[in-house]
Amino acid sequence: MIHNDNIVALATPSGAGAISVIRISGKDAIEIVDGFFKSVKSQKSLCDQKTHTIHLGHILKEGNTLDEVLVSIFKDPQSYTGENVVEISCHGSPYIQQEIIQLFLRNGCRIANPGEFTLRAFLNGKLDLSQAEAVADLIASDNEASHQVAIQQMRGGFSNEIKVLRDELLNFASLIELELDFAEEDVEFANRNQFKDLIERITKVLKHLIDSFAVGNVIKNGIPVAIVGEPNVGKSTLLNALLNEDKAIVSDIAGTTRDAIEDELNIGGIGFRFIDTAGIRETKDVVESIGIKKTFEKIDQSQVVIYLFDSALSIDSLNNVKLEIEKIKNRHPQKPLIIIANKIDKLDDIQLAKLNAEIPKVHLLSAKTGFGVEQLTSSLLNLINIGALRNNETIVTNSRHYDALLKALEEIQKVKQGLDENLSGDLLAIDIRQALYHFGEITGEITSDDLLGNIFANFCIGK
Amino acid sequence: MIHNDNIVALATPSGAGAISVIRISGKDAIEIVDGFFKSVKSQKSLCDQKTHTIHLGHILKEGNTLDEVLVSIFKDPQSYTGENVVEISCHGSPYIQQEIIQLFLRNGCRIANPGEFTLRAFLNGKLDLSQAEAVADLIASDNEASHQVAIQQMRGGFSNEIKVLRDELLNFASLIELELDFAEEDVEFANRNQFKDLIERITKVLKHLIDSFAVGNVIKNGIPVAIVGEPNVGKSTLLNALLNEDKAIVSDIAGTTRDAIEDELNIGGIGFRFIDTAGIRETKDVVESIGIKKTFEKIDQSQVVIYLFDSALSIDSLNNVKLEIEKIKNRHPQKPLIIIANKIDKLDDIQLAKLNAEIPKVHLLSAKTGFGVEQLTSSLLNLINIGALRNNETIVTNSRHYDALLKALEEIQKVKQGLDENLSGDLLAIDIRQALYHFGEITGEITSDDLLGNIFANFCIGK
Repeated sequence: MIHNDNIVALATPSGAGAISVIRISGKDAIEIVDGFFKSVKSQKSLCDQKTHTIHLGHILKEGNTLDEVLVSIFKDPQSYTGENVVEISCHGSPYIQQEIIQLFLRNGCRIANPGEFTLRAFLNGKLDLSQAEAVADLIASDNEASHQVAIQQMRGGFSNEIKVLRDELLNFASLIELELDFAEEDVEFANRNQFKDLIERITKVLKHLIDSFAVGNVIKNGIPVAIVGEPNVGKSTLLNALLNEDKAIVSDIAGTTRDAIEDELNIGGIGFRFIDTAGIRETKDVVESIGIKKTFEKIDQSQVVIYLFDSALSIDSLNNVKLEIEKIKNRHPQKPLIIIANKIDKLDDIQLAKLNAEIPKVHLLSAKTGFGVEQLTSSLLNLINIGALRNNETIVTNSRHYDALLKALEEIQKVKQGLDENLSGDLLAIDIRQALYHFGEITGEITSDDLLGNIFANFCIGK
Repeated sequence: MIHNDNIVALATPSGAGAISVIRISGKDAIEIVDGFFKSVKSQKSLCDQKTHTIHLGHILKEGNTLDEVLVSIFKDPQSYTGENVVEISCHGSPYIQQEIIQLFLRNGCRIANPGEFTLRAFLNGKLDLSQAEAVADLIASDNEASHQVAIQQMRGGFSNEIKVLRDELLNFASLIELELDFAEEDVEFANRNQFKDLIERITKVLKHLIDSFAVGNVIKNGIPVAIVGEPNVGKSTLLNALLNEDKAIVSDIAGTTRDAIEDELNIGGIGFRFIDTAGIRETKDVVESIGIKKTFEKIDQSQVVIYLFDSALSIDSLNNVKLEIEKIKNRHPQKPLIIIANKIDKLDDIQLAKLNAEIPKVHLLSAKTGFGVEQLTSSLLNLINIGALRNNETIVTNSRHYDALLKALEEIQKVKQGLDENLSGDLLAIDIRQALYHFGEITGEITSDDLLGNIFANFCIGK
């Protein structure tokens, strides 16, 4: 990879809008743009303008105005990439965007690779690797929780913690390696008790971070919730009540919802992906049967199951309901299951009492009137341990970091064992170095072209 | 309409991207943003920063960072709208965009109406009305010609010409009205010969501008070209050869293309909209018959007709071809018709000679090999008078301007007639005032809320 040339890309979403921003980064960025820019006010070259200033003028192609633009100047190292950067704010016509980008491609720039601006920011020390990864997460964030975690990570919360531990560990590693130089004199520069304390602290932090990944993963990817029940019990209506919109087909003909419809809803800042299924009613209809098979597949993929039944229709045949609940419990004994009696607006008090008596932990609801919908959303929230999120604790969301943390913990445990067994310094040092290596993988002190390629390939072009 | 409050809108296209720009305009724009902005470097309030400067920092919501952003400051009157303007360049996540916009909506801003930033620019005298209208044209421009015309109009080329004439006319109007004050003394302040010269010049310019609308309209809206011919003669293949892509279904079964497919192609910087039709072959198939009816409708709507036939298949039955050509000519005697013999790669020299002899002005082509495609595109270009465009002349593309110019010309001709008939000054003055009124409509000296509402309703929000 070459990273000392000049790159250009559209930084705003593609399509038409009021304005678009084209970003150019590299040693010659300002000079290149200056060659095609005519300021409305100033005679000065853009190169002579101060950093962080904006200039109104025209982008010229063969002497003709391509567009009236605002040009923003950022000078090395005070820019996103740490290089000279120019941002051209032009009219939001795809034709103009392309003409301007083409102009610079013909004049000393090449098109940027996905994430290359952020890659350069990393390579120039503006961000560490976990911060750079958070930039992509931040752009992809679509609810309060994923946004909060990404912001925290981008601001270094997570990697700072790792860096402090790494520095302390590095210090001990150096002391122990120093001992090796004086091996014959049998000195101990590294206080073994302090070192054990540090290893304890590191172990605790690592375990905490590793545990947080369960929440982190949920925050980043949303929680899949399967809504299961016989046709026509009101699954689509419930989904609509939860979604407050009309994405699922609602009708009174049993078996209308044949395809699983998936939709995401933010509850308390957490993304839930609700998966509407065709139910598990016994049937001879082939299409329905396929639906039932699909329903079980959807349950397999979900983290939470909602079983929904029509309380008015089932009040005299609650045994069928119990049977279906058993089916789900047998197949997924560990999976959180919320049992909901829908259409309770149609029941009288005696029927309600019967329902509560026969179906344990039943959740009463009327999707039509909205009764019980709010309680359902809080039940869903309670299933997720979001205490960590509320307390602003560091949460790991990235599986690459998770893997590195697991490996680091493994090495740290080896170090601990070595200390307990009074292992010699040279052997201890090897395990410490391995742990340090995995810490370095997270923050990017240790990288390879392959690793960087993988990480930044997932970015959008222009970032 | 209220125009002294603070407005906010997303200025870049919606969706995810590297960055998004949120634009705020109004007297308190800088102060409002300052309340939620924490600079990374400076302790100074944004209000104390210089115009046209950029500031790195955080947008805070209830003390927590919503995003790390770049804030650009533009101070009244040195901004697009002529008011205080702040542009916030944030990460391109729809969630973040919405959070930031919501934050300002809760704190002294309202969401901008479509085109309201440009409307304010007009109301504050930063642009005249025809320039403001050109902004929307510029964003919509998708080829060289429409782009060039929009840029020219935005830079005032067209309205400047009108303004100069208007000023001269206004001058004469004042002199003639002055004469009225001295009516009893029988003086002539306005030299009638010079005035006749001016009226001549104005007439010439107006006629020229009015004539340019034919080209302007074509440039703005593209030229509809119907491709007509029997099924399976290669219409889709020709379309693909012209489009260089695969949008039409190409198959060997006669009658595959039943729906009219429309696609736009830039030839020499002009937009052509090619309309593929189901042909006009006599048939008993009901679907085909509907297709033929549609074909004639498409011909009605098009400005150019391409009649395409399979030369290999038709070489022994050219009478049918002649018959269909006659049908089209009878229905549309004035419409430019290009007759194309396709698949000429399958003919020998004797057959080619026969073809040329029997079908006058036949255009030989092989959509498969590409032979004749380039010549076809230049034939199409020759149908359009784009001399004006090439010579950088002013071209009217806006039907509102066209109407105003027609009305102005009508009044000017009345003035001319009045001069020829030695009409009295007071009567002349009335016609001159009417002409001035129509000039003023174009540049926006004369406006109404209705007119402005109509014009800016077609803008996107954020512009």
